[in-house]
Amino acid sequence: MELKVYVHRLSQPARAVLIFCKMAGIEFEEIFIDLTTKQQKTPEFLEINPLGQVPAITHGKTNLFESHAILIYLASAFPVADHWYPSNLLKRAKIQSVLDWHHSNLRRGAGTYVMNAAMGPVIGLPLNPQAAAKAEKLLCASLSKIESFWLNGTAPFLLGANLPSIADLSLVCEIMQLEVLEEEDRNRILGPYRKVKQWIEDTKHATMPHFDEVHKVLFNAKPRLQKNLPMGATNTQTQPNLKLSLQSKM
Amino acid sequence: MELKVYVHRLSQPARAVLIFCKMAGIEFEEIFIDLTTKQQKTPEFLEINPLGQVPAITHGKTNLFESHAILIYLASAFPVADHWYPSNLLKRAKIQSVLDWHHSNLRRGAGTYVMNAAMGPVIGLPLNPQAAAKAEKLLCASLSKIESFWLNGTAPFLLGANLPSIADLSLVCEIMQLEVLEEEDRNRILGPYRKVKQWIEDTKHATMPHFDEVHKVLFNAKPRLQKNLPMGATNTQTQPNLKLSLQSKM
Repeated sequence: MELKVYVHRLSQPARAVLIFCKMAGIEFEEIFIDLTTKQQKTPEFLEINPLGQVPAITHGKTNLFESHAILIYLASAFPVADHWYPSNLLKRAKIQSVLDWHHSNLRRGAGTYVMNAAMGPVIGLPLNPQAAAKAEKLLCASLSKIESFWLNGTAPFLLGANLPSIADLSLVCEIMQLEVLEEEDRNRILGPYRKVKQWIEDTKHATMPHFDEVHKVLFNAKPRLQKNLPMGATNTQTQPNLKLSLQSKM
Repeated sequence: MELKVYVHRLSQPARAVLIFCKMAGIEFEEIFIDLTTKQQKTPEFLEINPLGQVPAITHGKTNLFESHAILIYLASAFPVADHWYPSNLLKRAKIQSVLDWHHSNLRRGAGTYVMNAAMGPVIGLPLNPQAAAKAEKLLCASLSKIESFWLNGTAPFLLGANLPSIADLSLVCEIMQLEVLEEEDRNRILGPYRKVKQWIEDTKHATMPHFDEVHKVLFNAKPRLQKNLPMGATNTQTQPNLKLSLQSKM
């Protein structure tokens, strides 16, 4: 069965799914969905994901969306190294626990902050300093919880693991979104969290060269985002496949 | 291994876990954590859940939190009827997709609305009409998406199923929180969604008598919540087990 992965690489959960597929050696076709022109809301894409967001996948006759659901499905449906999503029931439950926590904490804080402080104009939304300030509090509280609790002990990855899981990938891709901020803002937010910074480096290192290759679009977009300039498809994707064009879940 | 379930029945995810255990015939001990006196932040409870929220479980030497992770773990670790969390990989992935969507949509809308419109004072937070109005928009958009998409076809449960899954239980318990609102507000919000209202009734019916028994505390609390009166443990729990006292994830 052919696997198609619908993404825009400026979307952090889309990057997590892409890097996972590449790391796991899963064969797939990457299909570019242009969030800057709201292609995720076109009738063609709404047939694939009626929620109008990326990432989404089709696998044979199946369609699936929500990045955590996709990561868990792919890690279960393909012969993937156990550390990504362990078969041990308890380890699996703990990873699920991190992923659930992510939704209401790190994602809500980081996603809302970046959108209101830098990225909104990319999808036609205004910046909102008041909403950004509120989101920064949740973002910092979330980073603090990762530093003091989820990264317990001396092991490099979440939950005391020696190898990364889908939770490491999902959460680190979320934090990487802060790369589009001014250096001063990024340092203010991430500065206090030594273990978090080391964990980001460890996750990058464990998923090279795919991590850097998939994030390239984010680094390329930074200068335009910081000047609040509009961004065409050619600015945001290195190898766009324009079979479809849609709006995303960033 | 002994299973202990730490809850406050005013917490909607706590109720979902309780009803599931009772429906699945899982033996467990219910331990009351008093959110009204912030018992979820006491050192004793933070040893069980360092995030300071209910629900949480201990199962032998294991502790686990986040209600979706708990539901998935229990449905996998105990011999539970397949419809709650199907062994079929694709059906399971679709349920995961609903649960992930829940976090950023229905839960964020309903939880924030109810907290800011009615329930905040229970845990010492002020009401905030402006935040409530913003949350109501997300809540209504979420209900609309359930009506038009997740409840597709003529089957009574989510994803076209004829029997309920853990996703039905989790989402319906979330919506039940609206019971504490004034009738006028509740009707304004739920009124337009005929299929949603029928689905709530079908889920109640499929999980009786446990559904009503576990929700009794919510109905009992309603008069005091509507008058913004403080609420002691005896008002909010029918059979409190005061081994521990903590603050919750409502």
